[in-house]
Amino acid sequence: MECSFFSSKCMPMSEIAYMERTYSSQFLSFRPLVDFKSTPQFCFSRGISPKASYSSTPNNTYLPKKALSSVEQEKLGAGNLLYQINGSNSSLFTRNMRILDAFDDEYGGVIVDTERLPPNPNVFASMLRFSLSHWKAKEKKGIWLKLPAEKSDLVPVAVKEGFEYHHAERGYVMLTYWLPEGPSMLPANASHQVGVGGFVINDKNEVLVVQEKYCAPAFVELWKIPTGFIAESEEIFTGAVREVKEETGIDTEFVEVVAFRHVHNVAFEKSDLFFICMLKPLSTQIMVDDHEIHAAKWMPLVQFVEQPLIREDCMFKKVIDICIDRLGKRYCGLSVHQLASRFDDKISSLYYNVVDSQEINCIGN
Amino acid sequence: MECSFFSSKCMPMSEIAYMERTYSSQFLSFRPLVDFKSTPQFCFSRGISPKASYSSTPNNTYLPKKALSSVEQEKLGAGNLLYQINGSNSSLFTRNMRILDAFDDEYGGVIVDTERLPPNPNVFASMLRFSLSHWKAKEKKGIWLKLPAEKSDLVPVAVKEGFEYHHAERGYVMLTYWLPEGPSMLPANASHQVGVGGFVINDKNEVLVVQEKYCAPAFVELWKIPTGFIAESEEIFTGAVREVKEETGIDTEFVEVVAFRHVHNVAFEKSDLFFICMLKPLSTQIMVDDHEIHAAKWMPLVQFVEQPLIREDCMFKKVIDICIDRLGKRYCGLSVHQLASRFDDKISSLYYNVVDSQEINCIGN
Repeated sequence: MECSFFSSKCMPMSEIAYMERTYSSQFLSFRPLVDFKSTPQFCFSRGISPKASYSSTPNNTYLPKKALSSVEQEKLGAGNLLYQINGSNSSLFTRNMRILDAFDDEYGGVIVDTERLPPNPNVFASMLRFSLSHWKAKEKKGIWLKLPAEKSDLVPVAVKEGFEYHHAERGYVMLTYWLPEGPSMLPANASHQVGVGGFVINDKNEVLVVQEKYCAPAFVELWKIPTGFIAESEEIFTGAVREVKEETGIDTEFVEVVAFRHVHNVAFEKSDLFFICMLKPLSTQIMVDDHEIHAAKWMPLVQFVEQPLIREDCMFKKVIDICIDRLGKRYCGLSVHQLASRFDDKISSLYYNVVDSQEINCIGN
Repeated sequence: MECSFFSSKCMPMSEIAYMERTYSSQFLSFRPLVDFKSTPQFCFSRGISPKASYSSTPNNTYLPKKALSSVEQEKLGAGNLLYQINGSNSSLFTRNMRILDAFDDEYGGVIVDTERLPPNPNVFASMLRFSLSHWKAKEKKGIWLKLPAEKSDLVPVAVKEGFEYHHAERGYVMLTYWLPEGPSMLPANASHQVGVGGFVINDKNEVLVVQEKYCAPAFVELWKIPTGFIAESEEIFTGAVREVKEETGIDTEFVEVVAFRHVHNVAFEKSDLFFICMLKPLSTQIMVDDHEIHAAKWMPLVQFVEQPLIREDCMFKKVIDICIDRLGKRYCGLSVHQLASRFDDKISSLYYNVVDSQEINCIGN
């Protein structure tokens, strides 16, 4: 799959900015139209209908109906007034033959307006079916339908019409429909969880270690480094410091990512990236987090390494060896550098190593 | 959040193995019970009811009903026979007062058996309500409910009963319910998408570059390195080689991850990890992928760096400088090493650098 230079997204930044506005809150919260300059094709399709029909103004003077902006329709109260024209049947017909409010995206796709979905599942079903055939005729590609928990009644309707789940977060489920023939080109769901481990060693060559409360029986005795998931939008270097603080009460300063591990098919078929971070202790007094940690202590490095579970495990052993080499300046991990890029106008963290040796020799090349 | 030594999961490996069996396919596909040895608390709660009731065998001799294994219930055909006892009303009552088939997990939680959900939303609603009060009384914690697309009718029912979306993939949506007071301790959804970029340079100091078809107007002219998302369960080092091959037709060999970028709030509020990989070309003949790539070519390194969009962007410039330093052996990235660990009985990829210099000096320490 193709994507941009430094961020593995398949959309230009203008689109991403738009996606963020569109998806970043549990409910769509629109900014002034001027915000959408970055998406030239942005438009309302509310009220578009292949047939000419009529709606009335509050004072009942008729005017030809055309594609009205939501704002215009609000002024006219058209949503209600449609009911006042030709009796409930035909008005129901008229209502159901309308296309769902939506915005075009830059990929020939359509983003359905979550805030203006009809609450009635039957009305939604007819409008969705009608909208799909309309969008297909217009040769649209991917359709995005975000349904907040409050509108879960509409989920089975969308699924029956052929929508597929794309992803979900606590407050909503996102469904998609790929109209063209051939495989869907829509971007994938998040694929990884990211964890961090803090290797903290003090001047006495003691490692900060913990015993976990909830652990496989085989590992109950193991003294290990503090580890955890990084929080949403959290940096690796701050996540490692936070986890160590939460589990042991020790303040630390991030030094480097010394290595990372990539493993697959963990919970929910997702993959796991785990970053081993070298941290410098800034305090000594341990305060254990009773919720997650059984015990924590400063353990002499020699004892830490001599634990059978570590000595006999090539993965554990390698990581400890790396950390020890790093202590002896015989290893160079990746330090973090905050850099801005015009490409996406974001400050991001670039991890790389900084070596002043003019001639280091990477083995195997 | 606490988790294991190398994998940022909060569950012991036995549980993970179980989770994989439980969630790894669109529909639950159970292995023989012997497979579940690793989860000692694993059990069927099918048919458990606070009231004594009766079901009959095919030949209608009554026997006291107790917690029956699915196997036993299959033998008895109890699921159907319940209807034959006291007429439809009371049998409906009996049916609705049954607890949903489920398995205990090792965290005091419950995993509802997706394969044995009642198809009727009303029956499901009563059983779910009854089950929740039963599980609450039993002081259960997290309830996991996986609803495949075919059972989307049950989604609004579960949401109305207080379930929240946890995550979704194409074929299903996972809902959870946290019974105890206080914040949910259930593991989080995947948080990251992972991308790779391939820096490929030949003996003539020419970089393999592409121009993307779908790109922000400002970047249409930019010649960039091939990039892309890694596929599900794909390695970073194979993903980079694959992307280069797909976009340009060039065969390459992975050398190192030279740096990685971490950026937040990309599509769907997720974060993005992007790994810049140094690759060694194994072929020269370019074949452009017409679907995604506008053009590809070997570009002299000097011209590549002189592109205004790169020269004026500190992020782009830094990454190119790193790659150039790496070419001059003045930089040491992370090579990949496949290692097994007893901790989760998985072969995983550990990325670290291998330096034969006895004294390298990491700046800033």
